[in-house]
Amino acid sequence: MDFSGEYTTFKREELMQKVQMHMSERRFKHVLGVEETAIALAAKYGASEEKASIAALTHDYAKERPNEEFEMIILRDGYDQDLLNYGNAIWHGLVGASMVQRELGINDEEILEAIRLHTTGGAKMSLLDKIIYVADYIEPGRDFPGVKEARELALVDLDEAVAYETKHTLQHLIEKEQKIYPKTIETYNYWVVGKAAQINP
Amino acid sequence: MDFSGEYTTFKREELMQKVQMHMSERRFKHVLGVEETAIALAAKYGASEEKASIAALTHDYAKERPNEEFEMIILRDGYDQDLLNYGNAIWHGLVGASMVQRELGINDEEILEAIRLHTTGGAKMSLLDKIIYVADYIEPGRDFPGVKEARELALVDLDEAVAYETKHTLQHLIEKEQKIYPKTIETYNYWVVGKAAQINP
Repeated sequence: MDFSGEYTTFKREELMQKVQMHMSERRFKHVLGVEETAIALAAKYGASEEKASIAALTHDYAKERPNEEFEMIILRDGYDQDLLNYGNAIWHGLVGASMVQRELGINDEEILEAIRLHTTGGAKMSLLDKIIYVADYIEPGRDFPGVKEARELALVDLDEAVAYETKHTLQHLIEKEQKIYPKTIETYNYWVVGKAAQINP
Repeated sequence: MDFSGEYTTFKREELMQKVQMHMSERRFKHVLGVEETAIALAAKYGASEEKASIAALTHDYAKERPNEEFEMIILRDGYDQDLLNYGNAIWHGLVGASMVQRELGINDEEILEAIRLHTTGGAKMSLLDKIIYVADYIEPGRDFPGVKEARELALVDLDEAVAYETKHTLQHLIEKEQKIYPKTIETYNYWVVGKAAQINP
């Protein structure tokens, strides 16, 4: 895919290199899998394939940064200080988007928001947000019980795939007794329990 | 059990009658089961058996009130308006405590807080809060997979019983795709994931 120059001054190969420099080979392979999947979903659901490519390539850009760097940014840049109670799993998207913006010069708000939400999702998600959230879950390198069903859903109904991913991610976190970020519950209440239930509890 | 008159002007039999008037026979039987269990836990863990009795007898006092009454109180009395997005399951404790206070004249803050938290728990829970939360889950009338283990834990370690109940309640809600109140996640993050993880994510 050739980039138009509208969202980043880098060519795709250059952006790939920038990203690759910041992560293990294994993670970079995951990133390329997410990109491939995100582009396919964008084509299917009528989103910008270029934005899907850029957001996918950069979604884990900050994943291997040290905790101290995230903590410094959270303290400095007006984030909710409750974020300090979480860790890399939450920070690399929510805070990592600011590193993508500052260091890679990507200023498109839709791309940045898709990076922010790629782990937790949100009650409000754009088409691009959903594509990155789901692509991260079902890219070809993923292998866990249920991934086949998630892939099938993603081809039929993206919202159902968001719901499936959210429910199963939550179940996995609880099974493993891992911390849950409150925004994940917003995502669950909206996409799994449903919009009707939001209005008529 | 005879009441001292310190927390309510009613005798136990009078309080039981007041409560019974507001609910089905089936629910009143549950209330008596919670009371019996709460008194036993209070005796075991060194809490006031009288407070345990009063909190248990009144914890579901508001459970059969109409939604409209809760909504009116939430709108009027300075509650977080996000509460309107939930339903009776959350309201009957969190908001019901104010009905217990107003209508039954129970002003003891520790009792009222135990009523407020009996469904969702909280990161901060007093001994009485834990007793009512757990007693509600394991009273003799309860019958669900895991209740035996919960009863055994409650006799050994009340905090472990709080954690067990919280984890399994969340799993049940997600399995049934029912709405989750954010405070339940605070309870989970604190009591299931643990205090160490709170500090060092």
